[in-house]
Amino acid sequence: MFREKIKVLDCTIRDGGLINKHDFDFKFVRAVYKALSESKIDYMEIGYKNSKKLFSDKEYGQWKFCDDDVINKVIEGIESDTKVSVMVDVDRVDIDDIKPRKESPVSMVRVACYVKDIDKAIYLANVFADKGYETTINIMAISRAPDNELTEAFHQLEEECKAGVIYLVDSNGALYQETTELLVKKAKGIIKTKEIGIHAHNNQQLAFANTIEAVIHNANYIDGTVYGLGRAAGNCPLELILGFLKNPKFDIRPVLELISKELIPLREKMEWGYIIPYAITGILDEHPRAAMALRNSEKKDDYREFYESLMGHGENQ
Amino acid sequence: MFREKIKVLDCTIRDGGLINKHDFDFKFVRAVYKALSESKIDYMEIGYKNSKKLFSDKEYGQWKFCDDDVINKVIEGIESDTKVSVMVDVDRVDIDDIKPRKESPVSMVRVACYVKDIDKAIYLANVFADKGYETTINIMAISRAPDNELTEAFHQLEEECKAGVIYLVDSNGALYQETTELLVKKAKGIIKTKEIGIHAHNNQQLAFANTIEAVIHNANYIDGTVYGLGRAAGNCPLELILGFLKNPKFDIRPVLELISKELIPLREKMEWGYIIPYAITGILDEHPRAAMALRNSEKKDDYREFYESLMGHGENQ
Repeated sequence: MFREKIKVLDCTIRDGGLINKHDFDFKFVRAVYKALSESKIDYMEIGYKNSKKLFSDKEYGQWKFCDDDVINKVIEGIESDTKVSVMVDVDRVDIDDIKPRKESPVSMVRVACYVKDIDKAIYLANVFADKGYETTINIMAISRAPDNELTEAFHQLEEECKAGVIYLVDSNGALYQETTELLVKKAKGIIKTKEIGIHAHNNQQLAFANTIEAVIHNANYIDGTVYGLGRAAGNCPLELILGFLKNPKFDIRPVLELISKELIPLREKMEWGYIIPYAITGILDEHPRAAMALRNSEKKDDYREFYESLMGHGENQ
Repeated sequence: MFREKIKVLDCTIRDGGLINKHDFDFKFVRAVYKALSESKIDYMEIGYKNSKKLFSDKEYGQWKFCDDDVINKVIEGIESDTKVSVMVDVDRVDIDDIKPRKESPVSMVRVACYVKDIDKAIYLANVFADKGYETTINIMAISRAPDNELTEAFHQLEEECKAGVIYLVDSNGALYQETTELLVKKAKGIIKTKEIGIHAHNNQQLAFANTIEAVIHNANYIDGTVYGLGRAAGNCPLELILGFLKNPKFDIRPVLELISKELIPLREKMEWGYIIPYAITGILDEHPRAAMALRNSEKKDDYREFYESLMGHGENQ
């Protein structure tokens, strides 16, 4: 698959930070940036821009706030065409923390929201676009978005929003290929002047497959993380994306080396990947939070009981 | 997806046996049979029928030979509608080891072959069909089969073979959804009077996705293994298949319990799953044997070097 418009965004540090309160070692983050730069990945999302008025920087690591001077230290002296991205959540960002583009090492600001908050997200994306940034809106929990609300949101995005890319985010890891196809086609049918992106979670081992499916149906922005690092079941593995895409600019080897040197040791200390409770929440189209709580309890491997508890008390009952 | 014709075959013991010389504990095999029976899985493949003239039963465990009296002890006293399957390899089976169907606990004999050996496989399948068994032919390394040879093989199977099911086997874990679709459609286009099956490997985390893809295009026999246990990257996880299929006869819970009690401890002793060298052989459409050798060496985590060695010395150069 060689389509020059396809852009690959790595969000290893941003999504992985949801496991460890954004407390990665500085050296690790710099090693990721260096490897991604050598592999010619288009974007690296380095964390969140969360307001320090809402979250304590004593409780959370620096990748929850991503001060510009910290980012400058990460990228300093590394030859790179990889652009830096940060994510903001609706209601959790202090707009003044985002300086004008030309004063910042950041190129792209991605605004995450649920479909119900689309108006707030559009407002934020437009503010950041006006500050000079590339912007995206990432619609989370897309598998749970009511169809009529999604239709309206897509129309609003097309008509009112300056963001260049609209991402479909499978937060629950619940999508199958057919649902992915349906959602991408729906988005493309309404949103004619922007690109569509896909951010998949791997609860059912379908993150890579759903990413391919989205690409086949003309999504051009795709998210991955190194070795699939990310909350709960993790994300679409970047190395598989690089094996699939045929654009000769990409080089899989620095990412393979990064996995050997950094991710394999890290996996001994942090948990993510194909783990049955996350598969269960994916199958049931639930947020992984119940499974994350289970994995921190003594019953972490009591899968049958966990399944039965969700069947009996699910949000959908 | 509820299509009554879909049959699920579990080959945990048979494919997993390729990791440990078919030396599973008897108790474990019986626990698998019990759980599959409770989950209403259609078939359990319990191992190979290999000739003891060719392989020593001192070097290999009993699931490489699957004597009928051993199988009888596995299933004894367990209420079950799950049929027992065994696999034979072309040139490795002693035909006289397969008793007439009515003298045996086995219901199905599956004949595995490469496309070049299709004539031998047809001969064997016809012999076993005449002995009263359900039979299948499983075409291995389908991603590497030359298109013209595959076309001819499909015609021969349709015209000369008594097997009820023809399986497409992605031995290398190299298929993507589009290739899977193409191959299933090709098979269905020629083989009109038999069912098509899919057996996927998980090198690129696509085993489940390719199985779904095959089902969408009317493959009705699907292979899975509990927790994906199987050689190298392993197979399509049975629990994900059960989460996807909507036939109310299936019950995922006994399989979840089996994973908790048996597979999680087993994974500490045996290695399978998403491991980068297997991903690399999948991406390059190579047999996993080089990766399996790497995993038994001191360089087991030197992924970049392994990738470069395959790029420089691959069979295709």
